[in-house]
Amino acid sequence: MRLPDSFQKLADLLTELPSIGPRQAIRLVFHLIREGQNSVQTLSQRIADLKKIKICERCFFVHQNAGALCDICGNPSRHQDIIAVVEKETDLLSLENTGRYNGRYFILGEIPKSGILEDWQKLRLQGLKNFIEKNLVSNSEPRTSNGIAEEIILGFNLTSVGDFNASLLEKELKPFAKKISRLGRGLPTGGEIEFADDETLGSALERRD
Amino acid sequence: MRLPDSFQKLADLLTELPSIGPRQAIRLVFHLIREGQNSVQTLSQRIADLKKIKICERCFFVHQNAGALCDICGNPSRHQDIIAVVEKETDLLSLENTGRYNGRYFILGEIPKSGILEDWQKLRLQGLKNFIEKNLVSNSEPRTSNGIAEEIILGFNLTSVGDFNASLLEKELKPFAKKISRLGRGLPTGGEIEFADDETLGSALERRD
Repeated sequence: MRLPDSFQKLADLLTELPSIGPRQAIRLVFHLIREGQNSVQTLSQRIADLKKIKICERCFFVHQNAGALCDICGNPSRHQDIIAVVEKETDLLSLENTGRYNGRYFILGEIPKSGILEDWQKLRLQGLKNFIEKNLVSNSEPRTSNGIAEEIILGFNLTSVGDFNASLLEKELKPFAKKISRLGRGLPTGGEIEFADDETLGSALERRD
Repeated sequence: MRLPDSFQKLADLLTELPSIGPRQAIRLVFHLIREGQNSVQTLSQRIADLKKIKICERCFFVHQNAGALCDICGNPSRHQDIIAVVEKETDLLSLENTGRYNGRYFILGEIPKSGILEDWQKLRLQGLKNFIEKNLVSNSEPRTSNGIAEEIILGFNLTSVGDFNASLLEKELKPFAKKISRLGRGLPTGGEIEFADDETLGSALERRD
């Protein structure tokens, strides 16, 4: 069954979006048509409005500020020398929503399965190193000639892939931070001992407090 | 964490779409931003292009033809007097994709849980009745003064809700068709007897061939 041209082209485009399959794409287009011309116009405009979004030149998060920095990087009350490196913007959001972190972030982008960074990721990482060297002054003695971060948190998933990526990044970033850390392993809140895997339970035992 | 205005507004709008939750909406917006301005512009334009889509005045399916009828209703080789009433456009697509049907369709829209049709649905149904009375001529004797359809297929789900809706529609449409039918019940292709429910298996037994 051939669908109208405008219909099919939009459905194809929607199918390219993450976690939208061909059937859902078709359902979505029918939904939009049913909603009517005003809704269609509004959605089209809201998507076009994304062009107003800027990317922070320091951490690569989104913002709409007059300057080049996002709300977090531009906030003078946040520690610039404690940096959480994350893969995805949504990882930043999750960490930020805990309300327990007062450093800043650095979005590296999803690391390819090969473990080899894309060229744009290498550029981002080089930018981070340059920033640390030029802008962060170590308070510890003996003063190094170059700047150094207080702490770099490798905010990667605690999966085998995340562990692998963290070990790669740790090597890269070791010279640029006094301390390199990862997120703590243990039982999740509400977690039951009976159903925890050995690895998690072992970590919870070691890190008991 | 406050997201930029343009970001949040689009995420809110996407959340209103069927089967897109707030988290997926946010992931989608980040994805669009990462894809860059050209992709954003293309998607915005493709959505705006939906305004070119028309709704068939006879069956209410989508089309982009010069006239008022969709490809199916406008096809002279399809039986106009065999009409499959379906709730959703996607139900039409599924039936059409079987390649085994040469009648036409009528999209009623999703019937509310109350079983009481919305005003616009009543209008559609009245339009169907008018069309049958004015345009379909019965070949059977004695000729009725009004037209009558050869067959109306109630293409509803074989669920208890679908059964209920079918019984309502059957009452409404009985005077307008020589035969009112529903989709056949039985084992699905590839279905195993061991795992079929009693109702399905009973129907399969009764309708054995």
